[in-house]
Amino acid sequence: MDVKTLRELLKSVASGCLSIDEAVSKLERLPFEDLAYARVDHHRSLRKGFPEVIFGQGKSPEHILGIMNAIARQKDTIMVTRLSPEKAAALLAEYPDATYYREARILVHESQPIRKINNGLIAVIAAGTSDIPVAEEAVVTATTMGHRVKKLYDAGVSGIHRLMDEARLLSEASVFVVVAGMEGALPSVVGGLVGKPVIGVPTSVGYGTSFGGITALLGMLNSCASNVCVVNIDNGFGAGYIAALINNLGNRDL
Amino acid sequence: MDVKTLRELLKSVASGCLSIDEAVSKLERLPFEDLAYARVDHHRSLRKGFPEVIFGQGKSPEHILGIMNAIARQKDTIMVTRLSPEKAAALLAEYPDATYYREARILVHESQPIRKINNGLIAVIAAGTSDIPVAEEAVVTATTMGHRVKKLYDAGVSGIHRLMDEARLLSEASVFVVVAGMEGALPSVVGGLVGKPVIGVPTSVGYGTSFGGITALLGMLNSCASNVCVVNIDNGFGAGYIAALINNLGNRDL
Amino acid sequence: MDVKTLRELLKSVASGCLSIDEAVSKLERLPFEDLAYARVDHHRSLRKGFPEVIFGQGKSPEHILGIMNAIARQKDTIMVTRLSPEKAAALLAEYPDATYYREARILVHESQPIRKINNGLIAVIAAGTSDIPVAEEAVVTATTMGHRVKKLYDAGVSGIHRLMDEARLLSEASVFVVVAGMEGALPSVVGGLVGKPVIGVPTSVGYGTSFGGITALLGMLNSCASNVCVVNIDNGFGAGYIAALINNLGNRDL
Amino acid sequence: MDVKTLRELLKSVASGCLSIDEAVSKLERLPFEDLAYARVDHHRSLRKGFPEVIFGQGKSPEHILGIMNAIARQKDTIMVTRLSPEKAAALLAEYPDATYYREARILVHESQPIRKINNGLIAVIAAGTSDIPVAEEAVVTATTMGHRVKKLYDAGVSGIHRLMDEARLLSEASVFVVVAGMEGALPSVVGGLVGKPVIGVPTSVGYGTSFGGITALLGMLNSCASNVCVVNIDNGFGAGYIAALINNLGNRDL
Amino acid sequence: MDVKTLRELLKSVASGCLSIDEAVSKLERLPFEDLAYARVDHHRSLRKGFPEVIFGQGKSPEHILGIMNAIARQKDTIMVTRLSPEKAAALLAEYPDATYYREARILVHESQPIRKINNGLIAVIAAGTSDIPVAEEAVVTATTMGHRVKKLYDAGVSGIHRLMDEARLLSEASVFVVVAGMEGALPSVVGGLVGKPVIGVPTSVGYGTSFGGITALLGMLNSCASNVCVVNIDNGFGAGYIAALINNLGNRDL
Amino acid sequence: MDVKTLRELLKSVASGCLSIDEAVSKLERLPFEDLAYARVDHHRSLRKGFPEVIFGQGKSPEHILGIMNAIARQKDTIMVTRLSPEKAAALLAEYPDATYYREARILVHESQPIRKINNGLIAVIAAGTSDIPVAEEAVVTATTMGHRVKKLYDAGVSGIHRLMDEARLLSEASVFVVVAGMEGALPSVVGGLVGKPVIGVPTSVGYGTSFGGITALLGMLNSCASNVCVVNIDNGFGAGYIAALINNLGNRDL
Amino acid sequence: MDVKTLRELLKSVASGCLSIDEAVSKLERLPFEDLAYARVDHHRSLRKGFPEVIFGQGKSPEHILGIMNAIARQKDTIMVTRLSPEKAAALLAEYPDATYYREARILVHESQPIRKINNGLIAVIAAGTSDIPVAEEAVVTATTMGHRVKKLYDAGVSGIHRLMDEARLLSEASVFVVVAGMEGALPSVVGGLVGKPVIGVPTSVGYGTSFGGITALLGMLNSCASNVCVVNIDNGFGAGYIAALINNLGNRDL
Amino acid sequence: MDVKTLRELLKSVASGCLSIDEAVSKLERLPFEDLAYARVDHHRSLRKGFPEVIFGQGKSPEHILGIMNAIARQKDTIMVTRLSPEKAAALLAEYPDATYYREARILVHESQPIRKINNGLIAVIAAGTSDIPVAEEAVVTATTMGHRVKKLYDAGVSGIHRLMDEARLLSEASVFVVVAGMEGALPSVVGGLVGKPVIGVPTSVGYGTSFGGITALLGMLNSCASNVCVVNIDNGFGAGYIAALINNLGNRDL
Repeated sequence: MDVKTLRELLKSVASGCLSIDEAVSKLERLPFEDLAYARVDHHRSLRKGFPEVIFGQGKSPEHILGIMNAIARQKDTIMVTRLSPEKAAALLAEYPDATYYREARILVHESQPIRKINNGLIAVIAAGTSDIPVAEEAVVTATTMGHRVKKLYDAGVSGIHRLMDEARLLSEASVFVVVAGMEGALPSVVGGLVGKPVIGVPTSVGYGTSFGGITALLGMLNSCASNVCVVNIDNGFGAGYIAALINNLGNRDL
Repeated sequence: MDVKTLRELLKSVASGCLSIDEAVSKLERLPFEDLAYARVDHHRSLRKGFPEVIFGQGKSPEHILGIMNAIARQKDTIMVTRLSPEKAAALLAEYPDATYYREARILVHESQPIRKINNGLIAVIAAGTSDIPVAEEAVVTATTMGHRVKKLYDAGVSGIHRLMDEARLLSEASVFVVVAGMEGALPSVVGGLVGKPVIGVPTSVGYGTSFGGITALLGMLNSCASNVCVVNIDNGFGAGYIAALINNLGNRDL
Repeated sequence: MDVKTLRELLKSVASGCLSIDEAVSKLERLPFEDLAYARVDHHRSLRKGFPEVIFGQGKSPEHILGIMNAIARQKDTIMVTRLSPEKAAALLAEYPDATYYREARILVHESQPIRKINNGLIAVIAAGTSDIPVAEEAVVTATTMGHRVKKLYDAGVSGIHRLMDEARLLSEASVFVVVAGMEGALPSVVGGLVGKPVIGVPTSVGYGTSFGGITALLGMLNSCASNVCVVNIDNGFGAGYIAALINNLGNRDL
Repeated sequence: MDVKTLRELLKSVASGCLSIDEAVSKLERLPFEDLAYARVDHHRSLRKGFPEVIFGQGKSPEHILGIMNAIARQKDTIMVTRLSPEKAAALLAEYPDATYYREARILVHESQPIRKINNGLIAVIAAGTSDIPVAEEAVVTATTMGHRVKKLYDAGVSGIHRLMDEARLLSEASVFVVVAGMEGALPSVVGGLVGKPVIGVPTSVGYGTSFGGITALLGMLNSCASNVCVVNIDNGFGAGYIAALINNLGNRDL
Repeated sequence: MDVKTLRELLKSVASGCLSIDEAVSKLERLPFEDLAYARVDHHRSLRKGFPEVIFGQGKSPEHILGIMNAIARQKDTIMVTRLSPEKAAALLAEYPDATYYREARILVHESQPIRKINNGLIAVIAAGTSDIPVAEEAVVTATTMGHRVKKLYDAGVSGIHRLMDEARLLSEASVFVVVAGMEGALPSVVGGLVGKPVIGVPTSVGYGTSFGGITALLGMLNSCASNVCVVNIDNGFGAGYIAALINNLGNRDL
Repeated sequence: MDVKTLRELLKSVASGCLSIDEAVSKLERLPFEDLAYARVDHHRSLRKGFPEVIFGQGKSPEHILGIMNAIARQKDTIMVTRLSPEKAAALLAEYPDATYYREARILVHESQPIRKINNGLIAVIAAGTSDIPVAEEAVVTATTMGHRVKKLYDAGVSGIHRLMDEARLLSEASVFVVVAGMEGALPSVVGGLVGKPVIGVPTSVGYGTSFGGITALLGMLNSCASNVCVVNIDNGFGAGYIAALINNLGNRDL
Repeated sequence: MDVKTLRELLKSVASGCLSIDEAVSKLERLPFEDLAYARVDHHRSLRKGFPEVIFGQGKSPEHILGIMNAIARQKDTIMVTRLSPEKAAALLAEYPDATYYREARILVHESQPIRKINNGLIAVIAAGTSDIPVAEEAVVTATTMGHRVKKLYDAGVSGIHRLMDEARLLSEASVFVVVAGMEGALPSVVGGLVGKPVIGVPTSVGYGTSFGGITALLGMLNSCASNVCVVNIDNGFGAGYIAALINNLGNRDL
Repeated sequence: MDVKTLRELLKSVASGCLSIDEAVSKLERLPFEDLAYARVDHHRSLRKGFPEVIFGQGKSPEHILGIMNAIARQKDTIMVTRLSPEKAAALLAEYPDATYYREARILVHESQPIRKINNGLIAVIAAGTSDIPVAEEAVVTATTMGHRVKKLYDAGVSGIHRLMDEARLLSEASVFVVVAGMEGALPSVVGGLVGKPVIGVPTSVGYGTSFGGITALLGMLNSCASNVCVVNIDNGFGAGYIAALINNLGNRDL
């Protein structure tokens, strides 16, 4: 219920078209309808910046398809993350003009062209080649949300000169997504070189005491660089999403 | 060494004022001087937005004082975090016009007036009264860096109506710092209500299986809200610092 | 041995039909027989409220069938939990009028109609769609024990308005089972809204630092709502079982 | 805002005393006022059963006193948990007719006589003498909420005959709070003997691999008795609170 | 109730001196009285081999004294473990002929002379000098239970020749208690050299990743020697107690 | 080299048949030969009580066969643990008169009849039906080492009357192996009932916070019964082995 | 860019062949080129001692082949670790004269004959037969880097006489790689016997509380021998690599 | 017993001065005496390179003094680590010419001048100022063992240009000790820059999820640089000791 609807309801009461009892009954559930309304309103503002997202892992293709159809009816961009190639094939049969990013494991269907954010640049940096799928998840997420992304891969400590060689990227980007497994030191190094927010994404890459990404996560949480914050292990989507929200702030068009 | 200095050095070589051997000698260490230079340059740009910071915990007052004097000589703002009242008293004797924020345990000395950032607003929200010291660390940090901060305390799940009552704050702020101990659910709740980046700060408040903040940290890392990133337990400074960097992006003056 | 048997035995002694030595011999093992008796008596009282239960995981179909037959001979309701569809098929061949709840992975065979508990209502609330199997385990358990259950699914933080919209359910139920994975915040939110006992069920839904449900478990154990207690990860059966025992207390017929 | 207030507002609109714009303005914040209202209403219903509670740990006496005064103004029962004797002395100076339960570390001030719940019985059982303070926290909590409590202490495995000797208590109580440290096996044993809900409270009693209560907690979570749920380590208050809520269900007067 | 009492009760029934109702009433609680009886009987057999033991840690001197008096009334040996020198002094004032073993932190009072077990020998071996208090706890426990004990201290890996030099001890002892902190390798080494049961006692000696004895515990649990079993960290009492029970088996007098 | 060999060598020196240089050369390596000898001697004493054992897990059938042949040449009993049915089939083809215990996953080949230990009795008790394979590993191990074993299965807390009903077993056995998963409470209960050593074997049976047996292990390590020691998770072999070594002590024939 | 190149550049400036602007442009990126240069120089020195290494796990054969070709173009030795037999077969088809060490899971292709290091000896000692693959990884690594390696396998605590029998190896080697799973005690034992650096390699061999190698790792980190340092679980490559670097120090030819 | 003693014993046998029985008796314990001998011999070779070391923590001054006197009688260098200033004062009263290194908490007494190792250089690098005490422990250890040490402190990621500025140190040293707390990334960075062995020392510096050094330890164990090995948390002594043993290898005088 928006303000206009509320105003009309009150007019009906004022004009006697609506009894007080009926109005009470309608307004009784208003807090929740209003809350729902706020969410809808919020959704609308959100829709300007990013699409609704379906977490594909653990859902059946039928289940995903049902949600996709509901979103499509709203003419929203559809984005499905953590989607295996097998499930993607099933969905592409229904949405043939959707795009499946195999490495990022994301399917995107643009119900209408994505509005580009021209301000700012998001840098996505990955330490090792095994970290690339997680980095790509961030890249596709931010790109689908309309943002410009530059990526720099295989820039771990053993290739740190490559990172330093990218002086322009380091100075140009407004926010950094830094993806690393093993000891997870790369966000600290990047954080020490730049004056912008850095989102560290620990990956489950490694063996033995890498503990499926816990070591990388702990390394990033204890970064001696003050500008590093962290998301869950392998959560490239979350990092790309937050980076987009941050980059939105510098957007003169919003 | 900046580009101008480099150009003059080369001019001296071209004019014969500087022998090639002398130039080689000077340039040999250039990579590192240049790297240092890059840092100095970086520092200069950083200085526009935030001060250098001394981590006071585990350092003696004499040690801290030495670093403070070095910073003061550069006319920079001095900020000392994790500073006990006892140490603060010793430092205030030397810097009588410095301010000690007792709850935040931060000492600030403005060598020159802090430049205000007028764009944007940082919201700092704390779940319980025991979380306030960590929240204040974020508040003082961001304020000292020139940013506008509004705070909302005691807004945990049992007082969730207070949070929802602050609709204006929720819609107005450009970035959120949300501080919570125990189960650490508040960042998820705030994250579900807003479309801006949320920085979760787990605190060591709790007992038993709160494990000194680990439970709150894990809760935030696994937030079902996609816009939540996390810093180390009790790291109010880092959260305030990153929030300031994020809010800088929307600053038309930068 | 029940009181009646004991009384007859003593009568036989009094009448001289039973020698003192024989009576001593029979009574010597009484502690254990009595303990067994207590259990039988206890079982009888239990049978009024809920059936015996077979934990199906890790047992062969033959093994399960043997226990089922023993229970069937006592005309008790048979309930097998954690039962895979494959094993269920084998059991249904022998018990064709049993019901297999595929999502709950529970097989129920009513040797006689289940006695309905008309007082009270158990609410089973699940945060995400992936939590539904665990929630269904609680639903089928409590229903099989004769209780009224209402369920509310997909009511996580991102759909919190749906939860609030269910004001009637929140005020009507006498006990709540709240199922959530990831950060496990939902029991805290429900606990803050109601004045009834809340049984939190952490699920293994999530990835990375969800640690197979540990994060959700810890979140629930550290709930700032005082009315939340917790069962093991994915233990929907236990939650439904305890909810039924709690709801029994308000049963005027017991 | 309650229904009556809403009705009067609508009457004013119908009568023209209140312009539509003014009514819109008043109703705009209704969701949150209503939500607040719901909480107040909820509070009122809660007040029938239990008092508001102040978590004393980590709060200064002044801080606690401020909250106590606010509660006293509402004529509510004041209950302060986790209160050290030193702080209690300071509070008793202001509230001389309050009672401080030293072992439970709880201070209670009855602004008006506590209403007794005559139905049902809560059994509080402790394994070892070192577990008694946590058990007493549960006892005082439930008693202050008006419930009948019987306690059985020092009933661990090495004194299991004492437990079995209390057949009347085991059959009489409607809900059990079972407190144990070390291996935490007692709730399983009690759970196996009774057909009522059992709330296990792990305590931090033990050494070495008791890990400050984690071992007891894990033992209770993995109980082979299906009627055991668990609260946080040393959380006697929560257990007493939930036991009272459960026992309320059997209360014919509610 | 023992068999004799039971027989007399039955005689009274047979003779008509006791009504059947009265007999039922008396026998109703028999399971538990019998169980208690079984425990008393068990206690009696236990008393032959070892004394009742009071865990002194966390108990007040008054509390301990009360239990001591109860034991003294039964003419049993009193043994108090984990007793600080301060508490010991208070107890010695009441029991001046008791002995306080300062290093073992055990107080022993022989109400009657301890019966010596002449068969077998218990070897107590400690790795480092810091492990000696735990080792002494085992020594005093086993000695107080009447067993012969030989000890070998400072026999860690860096002094392994000392261990091997004690060939006679290694071949002579019937059971080994091996106490070690840090990496806890000593029980494995001893276990590889002897064909008798070895009880490993991890100690909290160490720093960093010794984790207060967890590393030593894990090392012992994973021993490649098959004859090593383990007790809790720092549990010298338990090890001495079990060693005595094992050594009892070879006692021809029992 | 045994004492006789040494004596002959010295005689050769005394008689001049062996030069001093040659004797030095032979004796130089004596420490290690002697150590080897000690091991051989130790082995011989061990052979009286138990066979050499091959840990089959992770070894190829060829590898196992090689070791088996080496043992067979010494006319020793062959025992292979953790052996899958597939590997067992391959080995049985070569050793057709060996016995494969499928549930215990142990293969035994008696090169000569196993010498029976007539003294003493080992009780092997298992809590749940899923714990039986681990219990059987202990049973087969102890039996193969010549000991009498009685077993009591499905005696967990929910069937505790069955345990208590076995009064004879509890009083007769000289050592107990108690196998339990989930909360691992059974060794504490048995330990409280008997005055003999109890070896707790945690199993990986359970789900969620059973953590593959860690909860059961911790429960046993923190047993309030003083006579419980513990082996690694699922280590039925080790428990049976140690029980046999303990039971050996009471063997009048040794 | 080396000093000579720099000197020539400056000469060109001095002679006017190079404009100041062009020189500035060339020198601007010098830090990074220099850093790169340093790496190249470093690489050259490294090439003398050991080859570049490809971590094969998680890379596709195509991916590995691409890197191999790049290395081959530099005439460097190719070494691929953690390579499955399936992938190795694919690579051997392209590089038929490469060698695949099946147990070590390493493929080596010598573009030119490996230069032998004649000084020093590396001892690789493994505790159990299951640890051999990790030990072989160290052996092949060090051998491929040109070093002499002697190996001693199956030298765990139960075969400790074999270790002591190898007095020559213990005194001859200049650095030790000691590989062990389970309790990981072997490096402590070796470290106590020798006065040279010992590199402990924990392996994931074991079950239950071996926790996939964590127990062995912790045991080695807490070694009471001061000359033991540690690498990640199963990291035979790293141990062989570091051992080679250490052995290089004694190489008179370097 | 050394070879000479053995030879004389055999001569006595040959000459009839020693009966065969007496010789057997003396030689029977030879393995262990020989093992002791091997240790003494080993000790002698050790004495060339480094002193015996007393771990001072947890030992009383009297205890330490006793060991010191024993070492002094052998004219060996005395080194006591982990020694508090209070204990040091007591020891200095007895050994007035000893030196107490306050920051390293080490006391050194040179019974005779330390023999200098002129080859090679050990670099000790510390990340933060709080890591310096651990670094100094390494420095004093290696220096006392006669080695040349250069140190570089406050060289963490935020001061990485200082590290790179020390190109000479990086290329000159033969082994590196790198000390870091928090995320522990410095050894990876140093390891990437040099071709020599790097010993990482994690420190307990940090807060929250630094977990007293575990995060730094895990970071180092998972280093993407292959030349990093690790010692226990805060184990500066061990690192200095191993660095000295490594540097010994390049010593032409040994």
